[in-house]
Amino acid sequence: MSQPIEFYFDFSSPYGYLGSQRIDALAEKHNCEVNWRPYLLGAVFKKLGTGPLISQPVKGPYSHHDLQRSARLYDISFNVPDPFPVHTVAAGRAFYWLQDNEGPALAKQFAHALYRGYFIDNRNAGDTEVVIETAAALGLDPAAVAAALQDDAIKARLKTEVDGALDKGVFGAPFFIYGDEQLWGCDRMDHLDKWLETGGW
Amino acid sequence: MSQPIEFYFDFSSPYGYLGSQRIDALAEKHNCEVNWRPYLLGAVFKKLGTGPLISQPVKGPYSHHDLQRSARLYDISFNVPDPFPVHTVAAGRAFYWLQDNEGPALAKQFAHALYRGYFIDNRNAGDTEVVIETAAALGLDPAAVAAALQDDAIKARLKTEVDGALDKGVFGAPFFIYGDEQLWGCDRMDHLDKWLETGGW
Repeated sequence: MSQPIEFYFDFSSPYGYLGSQRIDALAEKHNCEVNWRPYLLGAVFKKLGTGPLISQPVKGPYSHHDLQRSARLYDISFNVPDPFPVHTVAAGRAFYWLQDNEGPALAKQFAHALYRGYFIDNRNAGDTEVVIETAAALGLDPAAVAAALQDDAIKARLKTEVDGALDKGVFGAPFFIYGDEQLWGCDRMDHLDKWLETGGW
Repeated sequence: MSQPIEFYFDFSSPYGYLGSQRIDALAEKHNCEVNWRPYLLGAVFKKLGTGPLISQPVKGPYSHHDLQRSARLYDISFNVPDPFPVHTVAAGRAFYWLQDNEGPALAKQFAHALYRGYFIDNRNAGDTEVVIETAAALGLDPAAVAAALQDDAIKARLKTEVDGALDKGVFGAPFFIYGDEQLWGCDRMDHLDKWLETGGW
């Protein structure tokens, strides 16, 4: 078993969503684990003085088209949600709380459910109620989830993750780290695939 | 014979250079022509209020690493030149003058020579003397090239190309247009390849 792939994403990122639909198969092919690590692109935008791709002139409309084309190519259901983008602090807190208390498998199920809810069924991933309902649908107690989202230790847990990602130089979604190698974007999943296959070049 | 691929690039763009080393083989595979269309990323940066990738914090160092990794993957000789980036107005003017007077085949030879000179041998593609020498090495009269670079009609020719690219929504390098389809980056050459193969999806 090789070292794990660190998979950084924001629940509001459509490219992150597309990556989430392909990373497990890629990792499985190489008998490799994936650490799912939601973080907050808002912190990146603040650090770099940038903003969401979709609201940029020219690049925004292009990315809208590119997302649809990419989704069709990989046969991934995808709709641009409304509202979009959204803040995903509650989603991130819920994820790490689930991971720490129920294990990474359930946390990943939650991430998939929240991502698909947002980018297929237009269920607002930025809405605390949607986050709680998504966890509840996986068998969690809604009151316990709601309490966790207000827990200072959980708040600090997400903040530490976000700070840690930024410290490592993570700046987009999806963003992968494998050993010393950093790979940004769905566009680099082919490099990641080849890196895992060959051991690097 | 299908419609041509419009291949937009800036002589100062390293990703444009990497694209230039792969686009002919891709097009040939599909029996497709390529229209090489140098333009000026500086005009894009001015329009969008952005700047060169390499000078952006975090993304700049990442792109430096990514360029080297991409070049090695495709077995393309590549060095980050110094100075970098540079203004490529003279190079663009020379290209269109060559294309209009000597034909697209020689213009493409010139483009390859200038790109390789810059990204392999550190010959400054932004330097008018280097532009003239590069054309001279292909058999052109240096005095005629030098005169062309100051010709108002050639100046206007490049400006029209740049304006036309911006009007179409071109914003990066390499940037491809095939029919109604726009594809940004070396990252989308796999989409372009598949699009040519399948007729789109």
